[in-house]
Amino acid sequence: MKSGLSFLIAALRCEIDELEQLSRTSDLVGTIGRLVHALQRERGLANVLLASGGTRFAAEHRAQVAVCVEFEDAVRQGFDQLEADAGSIGNGTRLFSRIAWVLPGLDALPDLRQRIDAIGMPPAEATSAFVKLVAGLLAVVFEAADGATDPEISRLLVAMFNFMQGKEFAGQERACGAAAFTSGRNESARQQQWLHLIESQERCFQVFVEFSSAQLGEQWLASQPPARVAELERMRRIACAAPAGVALDPELSRTWFDCCSQRIDAMKTVEESLAAELRERCDAKTAHARAELQTHEDLLAELRKETGSESAAFFDVIAPESAAAPAAIGTGTGTSYGRQLERSILELVQEQSQRLQAMSDELDTVRATLNERKLVERAKGLLMAHRRLSEEEAHKMLRQTAMSQNRRVVDVAESVLSMAEYLPIGKQN
Amino acid sequence: MKSGLSFLIAALRCEIDELEQLSRTSDLVGTIGRLVHALQRERGLANVLLASGGTRFAAEHRAQVAVCVEFEDAVRQGFDQLEADAGSIGNGTRLFSRIAWVLPGLDALPDLRQRIDAIGMPPAEATSAFVKLVAGLLAVVFEAADGATDPEISRLLVAMFNFMQGKEFAGQERACGAAAFTSGRNESARQQQWLHLIESQERCFQVFVEFSSAQLGEQWLASQPPARVAELERMRRIACAAPAGVALDPELSRTWFDCCSQRIDAMKTVEESLAAELRERCDAKTAHARAELQTHEDLLAELRKETGSESAAFFDVIAPESAAAPAAIGTGTGTSYGRQLERSILELVQEQSQRLQAMSDELDTVRATLNERKLVERAKGLLMAHRRLSEEEAHKMLRQTAMSQNRRVVDVAESVLSMAEYLPIGKQN
Repeated sequence: MKSGLSFLIAALRCEIDELEQLSRTSDLVGTIGRLVHALQRERGLANVLLASGGTRFAAEHRAQVAVCVEFEDAVRQGFDQLEADAGSIGNGTRLFSRIAWVLPGLDALPDLRQRIDAIGMPPAEATSAFVKLVAGLLAVVFEAADGATDPEISRLLVAMFNFMQGKEFAGQERACGAAAFTSGRNESARQQQWLHLIESQERCFQVFVEFSSAQLGEQWLASQPPARVAELERMRRIACAAPAGVALDPELSRTWFDCCSQRIDAMKTVEESLAAELRERCDAKTAHARAELQTHEDLLAELRKETGSESAAFFDVIAPESAAAPAAIGTGTGTSYGRQLERSILELVQEQSQRLQAMSDELDTVRATLNERKLVERAKGLLMAHRRLSEEEAHKMLRQTAMSQNRRVVDVAESVLSMAEYLPIGKQN
Repeated sequence: MKSGLSFLIAALRCEIDELEQLSRTSDLVGTIGRLVHALQRERGLANVLLASGGTRFAAEHRAQVAVCVEFEDAVRQGFDQLEADAGSIGNGTRLFSRIAWVLPGLDALPDLRQRIDAIGMPPAEATSAFVKLVAGLLAVVFEAADGATDPEISRLLVAMFNFMQGKEFAGQERACGAAAFTSGRNESARQQQWLHLIESQERCFQVFVEFSSAQLGEQWLASQPPARVAELERMRRIACAAPAGVALDPELSRTWFDCCSQRIDAMKTVEESLAAELRERCDAKTAHARAELQTHEDLLAELRKETGSESAAFFDVIAPESAAAPAAIGTGTGTSYGRQLERSILELVQEQSQRLQAMSDELDTVRATLNERKLVERAKGLLMAHRRLSEEEAHKMLRQTAMSQNRRVVDVAESVLSMAEYLPIGKQN
């Protein structure tokens, strides 16, 4: 029969396995980030290419496709590696089903590119194809963050997911603006969508700042110099604040594209630092857990040399009353060393299991942020299905209800979900 | 490079692993239930034995210890088996640290029993030792429920945990009442505690009814015949409604003990049915997942014979707009069978990954109940540390705040925790 200390060692071994798996998952997240970044650029270029009827960015677009193919290869290798490690992955079912969902999208890319090269689809359709694909890749990152079992790593993954998601909204904004400027005029629906993209980005970067280290937060601020932000805001105003239908200068499409690209490239350097920090934290934590494991294993070996069990003091140590009057127990026994060793090991076991417990409480807190996102997404999905709204409209509806009721968006989302059974989903109301 | 279907198969394999692990964990939960039941009875007998100065229940107590030793052995074997399967356990770190915490308690039992046999401790101290031990065992069950990755099994485990916890409160009530009647008088503090135990039981059984099947709910009702409930309530009233300090008839201690024991033994039959249902559901779900896996593997084999990829339709199928006008895509191509196969596989992949996703959404809902419990427990712990309250007092404080503010206890608990940094923990206020 195994002792409490043996199970503490088993718990530490699980912790180390989880950390090592997290380290691999974090690497994959970094690789996905690079592919997403390349696809975002390809999307922007494809947009201008299509909107200009094939006259702009043809060479840049070709070169970018080659970059994407290379990163795609790295991501696919990462996925395959993950499948090989399947046994040690906690939330494998969810993570793999996300990968299963997105892989056909990668498979379908050559087909999509052929149609883009032949100028055989409207820009909006190309954009929405890339948006779907990137959303699928980000869903894999989300699942990786949701499966993390260490609160500190989980925090960084939540920061990472939100940063990537914010950057994706920035990328969508680039494509949206590029299409608007290139076509020479803006429309009301596009203006609405554009404003939604601006707001969504800001929300994501807020969560990123909240969950990442102070150092990364500063790097993020430094990566967005005031002059570039001013230029961006000027062009946003030209296109979004003007009455719909007013002509836009097609020559601004390059200025817009370059300004957004500089901004997004600067984001990429922050993302790379975040990925490096993630990696570094995983390694440090694994090393720490390994050292702890060694201590415990040594202790277990020493204990096996002794005759005593490790636990005679269990009921003394726990009950606060008897802890206040320990003199009644330890006195008068001859086996004082054995007894002392037992007591110190018992304290160690209890201290450690409390640490692991505290860690999981902290994890619950971090994950609450991810859960809030899930709640809002599910409520939006419900509203979209029930009221046949677009995503922007559903989000706007939630937000307006929250404002008018002075509640948080997530609380409104929760109310919507709790009323789900009253809503005849999928039918016109 | 692997396809989407391969990852769907990997996801299903993970699901099967998880279900098999759940099946083993469920068995362990059943075994723990039997040990807890035996320990509860031992606690009750020890109480009367100690309160009567060794004159009552000596033989019954000895016999019950033998029963406990046997069940303890089964639980220890279950723990060891779990450690051997460590690799496939999702929340191993937490589960093992709970086991590490409780094992020294089992190790310390012989020592405790020696002191009880020698009538060497007050009944209240013996009770609190058993209460700690049972709480440690129930914490293992809680972790098992919290680690479940299938929503239906998770529901049953939540029902199980709450039933076991409710039964434990009933057991504590038996011990509390036995000590009161045997000592011949009741005290105000004990009356308070007694009423708290009654209320806590009722709350647990409510959650049990909510989360278990209708059939089990009925069995639960049938297990508590009105005549026995009436007898129980009569004795509760005699002891709790009378002014504190009034003499109680010591002869009632056996009536009380027998009445409670019949009630708790009837609970045990419900618990056994619940354990059987848990087992049956795990097996059925595993069989279903295996059949699904077979279908997918056959499909993958068929697909490998074809030349086409499985995904050319990715961007068509997803975008709702193009799904509404599919005529534009499928027409005019010569490879209609290959194309049809691709499309049906893509739909399968997407349907399945949506099913797995829906399952995890449902799981979040079920786990919310466990999280509520965690929040309340943590808030109580905080109040106990900060205000130096007993558990009952902390619970009462939360409940009274909730009543006066017309909020749920869990919402008040959340507020308490969110103010944690304002409370100087561990210091006198």
